[in-house]
Amino acid sequence: MHNPPALEQLVEALRCLPGVGPKSALRMAYHLLQYDRKGADQLAISLSNALQVVSHCSLCNNFSELEVCPLCASSHRDGSLLCIVEMPTDLMMLEQTHAFNGMYFVLMGRLSPLDGIGPREIHLDRLLKRAQDGIVEEIILATNYTVEGEATAHYVSELLRARGLKVSRIARGLPMGGEIEHVDSGTLAQAMLERRSVR
Amino acid sequence: MHNPPALEQLVEALRCLPGVGPKSALRMAYHLLQYDRKGADQLAISLSNALQVVSHCSLCNNFSELEVCPLCASSHRDGSLLCIVEMPTDLMMLEQTHAFNGMYFVLMGRLSPLDGIGPREIHLDRLLKRAQDGIVEEIILATNYTVEGEATAHYVSELLRARGLKVSRIARGLPMGGEIEHVDSGTLAQAMLERRSVR
Repeated sequence: MHNPPALEQLVEALRCLPGVGPKSALRMAYHLLQYDRKGADQLAISLSNALQVVSHCSLCNNFSELEVCPLCASSHRDGSLLCIVEMPTDLMMLEQTHAFNGMYFVLMGRLSPLDGIGPREIHLDRLLKRAQDGIVEEIILATNYTVEGEATAHYVSELLRARGLKVSRIARGLPMGGEIEHVDSGTLAQAMLERRSVR
Repeated sequence: MHNPPALEQLVEALRCLPGVGPKSALRMAYHLLQYDRKGADQLAISLSNALQVVSHCSLCNNFSELEVCPLCASSHRDGSLLCIVEMPTDLMMLEQTHAFNGMYFVLMGRLSPLDGIGPREIHLDRLLKRAQDGIVEEIILATNYTVEGEATAHYVSELLRARGLKVSRIARGLPMGGEIEHVDSGTLAQAMLERRSVR
């Protein structure tokens, strides 16, 4: 290789980013050094800063700079409802709907034994403690309707129900504007099974 | 948004990487903070270090930690040949062939007026100075055979020939193992035009 050592080191370090292989890493390093040294400097600063100040909220496990995040500290939320999501993005999507005013617990992942992610990695011990605070009355499982999300929901619900807690799961069915002709058969079958009486 | 400010800032900073949009940046930030804090730390250090120590070789314009890079400083290279390439990767590919033992000049790009890359951005003033050092006898244009690479080669050759310098262009033709049946017609036409007498 005819690249200077510091450049080679940067290429190697860029590979810690998900989805970045040797070729993209090289392209990124060239781009930063050639066209965006200011951006690269800002990136280095932001990385160091985030590593220093961003940790997890002790209640909801979401990323937070504070011991208890603003959402968990808010007095306007309903403490009797606890919604379990996989990732912070899921929490944000739910917040955007304005359909839920309870608390959250962010697993920061999903059960995925093949990737080495078991109950410990998604902090189920902390979830159990959180769910048994005496205020939570219902736990809503809002993990994805993927194989892993479903398995996680099943596992978590078993744990919680064994402790006498009330557990529910977000509904499956046709999406808004969904046409029966175009929806997949799994969703349609579930929409049929979970039909609601019209009042 | 329910992300802490330092995390938002990191997401924003990650977007300086080429090909990284808002969604990938968020995914990268989550990944680093959740699963690879060590890698993120190393990345921050490598970025700062590369920005500090990596500059350009004053002769060939390639990335270098030294004023003159090891290749340009070598006494085993033929100073009468100067090969012009677009990017450091092109230089590396040529070096791997062991077919060239002369010097290089790396444009760090190609003429691309639509992207705002003109003669100044690819340092043609420095190239002209380099090519007229009194030792260089032949300049070999090894830019890509793309529209922009061709335009760059044409522009550079005009500049150099106007100063009485000998300019050549790497050959076009069938690749090694290339079959006439499968090669594109542009390449085949060029291979016909640039045919060589068999001796």
